Amino acid sequence: MPSPTFRLEPLPGYAPTIGRLVGMLRYARQTTLDAVAGLSMAELDHLHDDSSNSIGALLAHIEAVERGYYCVTFEDRTFSAEEQAAWEPALTLGAEGRRLLRDKPLEHYVQQLSDARRLTLEALAARDDDWLERSLPAAPAMNAHFALFHVAEDEISHRGQIRWLRARLG
Amino acid sequence: MPSPTFRLEPLPGYAPTIGRLVGMLRYARQTTLDAVAGLSMAELDHLHDDSSNSIGALLAHIEAVERGYYCVTFEDRTFSAEEQAAWEPALTLGAEGRRLLRDKPLEHYVQQLSDARRLTLEALAARDDDWLERSLPAAPAMNAHFALFHVAEDEISHRGQIRWLRARLG
Repeated sequence: MPSPTFRLEPLPGYAPTIGRLVGMLRYARQTTLDAVAGLSMAELDHLHDDSSNSIGALLAHIEAVERGYYCVTFEDRTFSAEEQAAWEPALTLGAEGRRLLRDKPLEHYVQQLSDARRLTLEALAARDDDWLERSLPAAPAMNAHFALFHVAEDEISHRGQIRWLRARLG
Repeated sequence: MPSPTFRLEPLPGYAPTIGRLVGMLRYARQTTLDAVAGLSMAELDHLHDDSSNSIGALLAHIEAVERGYYCVTFEDRTFSAEEQAAWEPALTLGAEGRRLLRDKPLEHYVQQLSDARRLTLEALAARDDDWLERSLPAAPAMNAHFALFHVAEDEISHRGQIRWLRARLG
């Protein structure tokens, strides 16, 4: 992934407003990857306290949120029962996340994040700026622009937690 | 402040792209205010561990970042020596922040955040979307759109930390 740029502007291959949104998604992702660079499996699995999520679980959460919003924004649907079961520990975090989201190297999380992001970017490249403003049939209070901003916003919030947790890995 | 909406779209009183950015700034701020609602001065000053920033210090940081970016984006200048001295503990956080940023009630932080935000919104209302894309003379690697997104982005990152810290206030 290239270094983040410090500009938001139309990007080649995307409609103008979508390009600015892609710039935000990219910046958020690059700062997440920077925040976890070089972590070992033990560090990814470390639990700061009994109610803490591991850094690895937070990475799985970031991926699951992006996959969930993919359904809602691009496929106009909520999750299937199978998806719900697969994503539930990562979406909800907490005890189930602590039990299940572990024993994976950094490369696993990075690959999963990259796979989810590729789908998002392919779908965005095929849409126009009018699409970005429409309400979402599967979540009528939201429009697509907010939903995709929220994908970055939730990632940034957890990246703040990851930085805090990483500084205390000892 | 109104409840956050879950739409990003042009807003009355702002150029279209600026309106979407204002929607992001507002959403980030509302979630910060929700994250600190009802906290006492003792809770705002609480230090989770020896290297932690208090929630109050993080609120002061969010305000200082917005005031700093006001200079850089709207006034095309870096900070004066007086501003640098005034904002340094909140911008840098750490030991000086722990020493100086305390003993203030929630209302103080909320008022300061509101004052800084009012200036930002007034300045944005007076500008157009072309302005948003220009490079910043005081920070040439950035354009104004990125700089103001970063104001929200930094706030969201620290709001993630505030939520984590609040959940452990006991």
